[in-house]
Parts: sequence; structure tokens; C-alpha cells
Amino acid sequence: MISVVILGAGNVAHHLYKAFFSSENVTVTQWYNRNISNIRPFNSEVQLTDDISQLIEADIYIIAVSDDVIADISAQLPFEDRLVVHTSGSASGYDIDQKNRRGIFYPLQTFSQGAEIDFSTVPICYEALMKKDYPILKELAQSISNNTKRINSDQRAALHLAAVFVNNFTNQLYRVAHEITESQGAEFDLLKPLISETALKVQDLSPFKAQTGPAKRNDKKTIKRHLKLLDNDHHKDIYKLMTASIKKTHAHLNLTNNQKPKSQN
Amino acid sequence: MISVVILGAGNVAHHLYKAFFSSENVTVTQWYNRNISNIRPFNSEVQLTDDISQLIEADIYIIAVSDDVIADISAQLPFEDRLVVHTSGSASGYDIDQKNRRGIFYPLQTFSQGAEIDFSTVPICYEALMKKDYPILKELAQSISNNTKRINSDQRAALHLAAVFVNNFTNQLYRVAHEITESQGAEFDLLKPLISETALKVQDLSPFKAQTGPAKRNDKKTIKRHLKLLDNDHHKDIYKLMTASIKKTHAHLNLTNNQKPKSQN
Repeated sequence: MISVVILGAGNVAHHLYKAFFSSENVTVTQWYNRNISNIRPFNSEVQLTDDISQLIEADIYIIAVSDDVIADISAQLPFEDRLVVHTSGSASGYDIDQKNRRGIFYPLQTFSQGAEIDFSTVPICYEALMKKDYPILKELAQSISNNTKRINSDQRAALHLAAVFVNNFTNQLYRVAHEITESQGAEFDLLKPLISETALKVQDLSPFKAQTGPAKRNDKKTIKRHLKLLDNDHHKDIYKLMTASIKKTHAHLNLTNNQKPKSQN
Repeated sequence: MISVVILGAGNVAHHLYKAFFSSENVTVTQWYNRNISNIRPFNSEVQLTDDISQLIEADIYIIAVSDDVIADISAQLPFEDRLVVHTSGSASGYDIDQKNRRGIFYPLQTFSQGAEIDFSTVPICYEALMKKDYPILKELAQSISNNTKRINSDQRAALHLAAVFVNNFTNQLYRVAHEITESQGAEFDLLKPLISETALKVQDLSPFKAQTGPAKRNDKKTIKRHLKLLDNDHHKDIYKLMTASIKKTHAHLNLTNNQKPKSQN
């Protein structure tokens, strides 16, 4: 049984708490937040505190707060040489005060208030500054997820950056699609099955192989018509850049198809 | 019972054939393709032909071929005043030769060879040039899908364009994420649950409300670090443009949060 203290009360903290609470291998011995009011509903299940000097003994302390305050909170911890991890995709392990053993416990998923997440499918990437701390971090990760991975800081930075592309930027493409459909009185809802299928396709197929459409085919007629249809310059810029990106990725194919090396751009 | 003849043997033709074949309200009386070899496996189920002059009587003729050849095939049809539709998101209804009644039967989904599709969830957008042809097109759509919609050509053009954003461009963002993770020896596979969740989230929430991340928060520190991490200029351009796009969409929020109207761009 691994004992855990959670610090913080945001979305990640809430989702982690629920996953740990459901696990047979983990006990959350305490939950700290500066403001205790929004974790009060859990009062009957776990000891709550808003006094950081009153933290009790545990195997792992999990700081699930925004990046800016990790250093501050870790400096206030009233003990030394215990294992303290944060959950951030981008903060350094060195942000944690060096009086304790340090690590990272990064669930690579987007968490929303209220939305249920099946934690067993959430990839948990863990990192430790001292080698001896890996086994317990691995055990903790495996106790709530079937998808765990020891990584290093460079890999975590790459994953966090790539996550911005597949999550924030992709969602913004959905938004632009929403604006385009609305501007013509068409229903964005009609695109939802396509959105699902696009995400589903790359679960088994590489994005390279999954690609289709006018840019990949270098179908100049359709591209021209699309650009003419777009009355928003900002949407046009996105269309041009993403089309160029697809052409770049699949340039070899277009060279082969068209036998016209000079026509590429 | 609606009788249908399918012309063409690409992905859309194959998926439509299977959906019609499974429907109790539709009978495919004939399947035409210039080259009959790749539809031969269906020989025992449906009459096949590679001779367009031998097309038999049906309620609806569905031309499921690439945009470029719709006009050509429709001109070769050996009859007049019957209902002929194409399945394209971008071709005009007028591409169909005017000797017949014309319409569009556009399934808004990405179809791959081999990949099974539950057609009942595929939005089918239909259009007719003559009002009297709407009822049978509606009935045909509803016989294979629970998600059907009468639209006009402007709406179809907007949907087709928006589909490029949520399908081709989104898939290219996945590809860039693949390149970023690979360049650091991280596993793209770790991003797959996030890809799924991002698509799932907008099934119930608008993309506007679903947005999170550094660009929305206008978190300059993280954005700067990400741009520094990107060693590929092309990836940098996408990062900058999509970040600017998110900022633009959520500018109101950042104004409110930061109280610094001049700091926006």
C-alpha cells in the first residue's frame, strides 16, 4: 500500500484523488489546499487541511498546482528527504525545493471539471531525480493506469509541446470550422462524426498514412476554390499554412504523381 | 423499396454499397464501373456491369467518382429525366448532365479502404435541383443514416471546407506532433488518449468552451519556452499562427484577466 498526500485542488488534483481513492494499492492519507472550501465534500473520506505545517507522513507528496507556485509550496514543506513530485508537463523537477527527493508524475491528458475520465487509459509519465525513487513511482503509476512510462525531461518537454498541437491547436481548428459553418448557416454538428473518425483513425494508423484531401493530392482546383470561399483573412492564413505543411510532408508523393518537380511549393 | 444503381468503385462507392445492401428499404439493382475487376467479389449479390450503355432502370443513380469525371460519366448515361446524384462535397449539382434530374447525396465522413464505418452515424447531406426530388432523397438518406440533413449548395461548400480543417488539417497537426515526439525519442503513442479526448470533448461542448492551454491563458513564459524548443521553422510557424488564432478567439478573456488591452496581439 502506497500512502499519498495531495497538495492542490484543481482539476488534476481532483481527478488524481478520485483515481487513487478507487485504487486498492493507494491510500490518500491527507489532502492539502490553501483554501479548503472546494475540497470539503471529501471530508468524510480523507483528512483535509489548509495548514501546510500540519502535513502528515506519507510515501509520496504530490504537488498538483499551477507551475508558478510549485517552487513556493515545495519550499514550505515542513520536512526533508521525502519523495515530492509535481504533475506538470513543463515545470522542471528542480523547481521542487532540494531539501526533499524530487520527481514528476505527469498524467498526459486534458482534465475538465465534471468530465469523467477513465484513468486506466491515461498515460502517466514519471521521472525521478534519484534512481532509487523510480520503483515506487512506477508502482504508484501502475496502480491507477495501464499506460505508464518512465521518461526523461527532454521527452516530457517534447510531449508537452506536442500535446499543445494535438489538443489546443486541434481544438482551435474545430473552432475555425465552427466559424466557417456558422457563417453559411450550416450546422457544425454535422462535422462531429468526422471529428471523431479523424481522431479514431490515428489510433491504429500513423498520421502520415491517415492523411487524405486536396492538399495531399495537390488538387489545385479545390484549394483555389476553398481559398476563394474563405472571406476571413485569418482563416485563409491557417488554410495556406496547413496546406503547405501537408504538401511538405507528402512532397515525395506529389513529385511521383505529377512528375513535375518544379511545380512544388 | 428504393432501387439504386451505383456508378464508381472507390471508397465512397464501396461504403455506400454496403450500407444500402444492409438496408431493408433499398435494393441495389446494378453496380457499374469502367473496370469491373475490383467489384467482382460482389458478383453474387448484385448485377455488375462495365458497359454504361447497359444500365438498367432504377429510382436513383448514384455517381460516386472523383469530381473530375462526374460530368463525363453523367453525359454518357443512356437515358433522360431520371434522378441522378453525385456524392461530392465540392462538385456542383450542375456538373451532372442536364438531360437528367439532378441532386447531391453527400456523406460527410472520411472513408478508408478496409475501415468499417457505422453508416447510421454518418451525416448525409442531400440536395436536389428540383423540389419534387427531395422526398425520395430524404427517404434514401434515412434508410441508411440517423443523421440526415437537407442543405443548399452554399452550406455544402462551407461544410466541405470546414471538413478540411477538422480532418486534413487536424491530421497534419497529429503528424507534426509525431515529428516533435520522434525528434526527442518520445512516444507518439502516449498522445493518443489526448487525441481521443480532444475529439470527444467537442461532441458536447463548443470548441470555444473546450479550449485550454498556454495560448488561451496568454501564458507568455510557456509560449516562449515552446518556441525555443521547436527547432523546425515550419513547426514554429504553425505554433505561432495557431497561438495567435487562439488569442484572437479568446482576446476578450485575456483583456479581462490581465487588464492590459495594449499587450494583446
